[in-house]
Amino acid sequence: MQILNGQELSKQIQAEIKLEVDAMIANGQRPPHLAAILVGEDGASQTYVDNKIKSCKECGFQSTMIRKDASLSENELIDIIETLNNDANVDGFIIQLPLPKHINENKILLRISPDKDVDGFTPHSIGLMTLGLDGFKPATPFGILKMLERYKIETKGKRCIVVGRSNIVGKPIGIMLGQNNPVGNCTVTILNSHTPDIEKYTREADILIVAIGKPKMVTADMVKEGAVVIDVGITRVQDDSKKGFHLEGDVDYAHVAEKCSYITPVPGGVGPMTVTMLLFNTLQSRKNKLKALNA
Amino acid sequence: MQILNGQELSKQIQAEIKLEVDAMIANGQRPPHLAAILVGEDGASQTYVDNKIKSCKECGFQSTMIRKDASLSENELIDIIETLNNDANVDGFIIQLPLPKHINENKILLRISPDKDVDGFTPHSIGLMTLGLDGFKPATPFGILKMLERYKIETKGKRCIVVGRSNIVGKPIGIMLGQNNPVGNCTVTILNSHTPDIEKYTREADILIVAIGKPKMVTADMVKEGAVVIDVGITRVQDDSKKGFHLEGDVDYAHVAEKCSYITPVPGGVGPMTVTMLLFNTLQSRKNKLKALNA
Repeated sequence: MQILNGQELSKQIQAEIKLEVDAMIANGQRPPHLAAILVGEDGASQTYVDNKIKSCKECGFQSTMIRKDASLSENELIDIIETLNNDANVDGFIIQLPLPKHINENKILLRISPDKDVDGFTPHSIGLMTLGLDGFKPATPFGILKMLERYKIETKGKRCIVVGRSNIVGKPIGIMLGQNNPVGNCTVTILNSHTPDIEKYTREADILIVAIGKPKMVTADMVKEGAVVIDVGITRVQDDSKKGFHLEGDVDYAHVAEKCSYITPVPGGVGPMTVTMLLFNTLQSRKNKLKALNA
Repeated sequence: MQILNGQELSKQIQAEIKLEVDAMIANGQRPPHLAAILVGEDGASQTYVDNKIKSCKECGFQSTMIRKDASLSENELIDIIETLNNDANVDGFIIQLPLPKHINENKILLRISPDKDVDGFTPHSIGLMTLGLDGFKPATPFGILKMLERYKIETKGKRCIVVGRSNIVGKPIGIMLGQNNPVGNCTVTILNSHTPDIEKYTREADILIVAIGKPKMVTADMVKEGAVVIDVGITRVQDDSKKGFHLEGDVDYAHVAEKCSYITPVPGGVGPMTVTMLLFNTLQSRKNKLKALNA
């Protein structure tokens, strides 16, 4: 069994990104610039955004953190988005989800300019992804693809089972792994809460991707010997520690690890890759703009 | 076994559409207006477009047919698209595919204004569909959903196998049937040319959708007793008849029909539904505009 070490791989890819940024700066160009909007006080969201900003700095990016109170109105948020859309010095921006309940997330996403949508969440980006065209791919599934690529895991003709059909993970990773790409050409089944007998499916998986948010839901008896297991779940489980919680994935790691060929740990698996692919997309956005300027 | 009669169902839905159009006209409003662009001389394409225009007339729609020689340049086509995008009297338009090889289809699709994309082919429309949001759904998979709905075929928790992963049929119907909708909540697997042992999958299908363009590829031994079989294939097979060809589906109808609970014939199954859902989308576009005017 080999660990898919998202932490290590992230370091490596971020070092590659930094090399490109250094070259940009050496050429007299400004580095990529990512802005992040955080509305409200959700603890996990704060940690995620802080990690993103920290990684920006480590890669030589410019970054802007926009923190707003949970009372922010939908129109005020739209004004912030418009400002970022029109700011030529911002290459991409993200709005950390979830948003407070009085703000309609779908309405907000429609306002993000597609050429700054480095989270890959807008309908336009999702459409390009579904059609197999160039565009910003959603960061978490893109991170999974990158992991499979760098660990040279064969996907063609493999049976892939995705547990969970969320718009930000399950659905896009299922779509992308089914496409005709070097990391792709899987036969993909996406399971949902109405699927009877999900074990029947998970036991058939050569590549099992779990993104449902139920700690230790996938047990060893549900996994085929030699499978590749990707655990996207990351749940704060309360405990008696000083922090008051620890993180748990959707997979019962200790027992599943014994059976499979590759597995992602939680934390340190898919999570860091998500941040890295966000930086990757932001660098790409900067490069797109430089290319357009030189064209 | 019951035939899923797309011809009959289309007549019925088109009659419902006509009622709405008649009411519009009685209210002093203009009817919906669809424009169709046909480039080149492909025989099947001409038949498809002619059928669409004929159905427009039968439903009381205004229609405009724009025929261009295969030598039309990409920029000339973009000019036509821009004119239609800006014409307040056109509610929707379609560009019959395939286009001549010197024209980049993906580049062209990006130029269609999303609010007139009644074929549902642009990245924005495909993104809305993937995210489960309101928008124009691609006509062929939308026609399949409508058929399942009108024939009251239960989909929740069913095993659905889609053979073929095209952007206009296989991929979108797989995505939509997996979503949390009244016609949806299936466990969907999309097969592709790298899938080993496709019979293993097709034999498990409660709902089998075939969209691959290989005449009679699905034989009776590949289908489970009592399955619902949707045949999207429509291939011109040469013969000694006066026309010189007849149409064949991807399913060996004569033998498969004996085993299944529901089946679509070819022709007269999915084909007419595609035209009908195009009209449905165009009517919807007209209604969206009227609603915006009254808001």
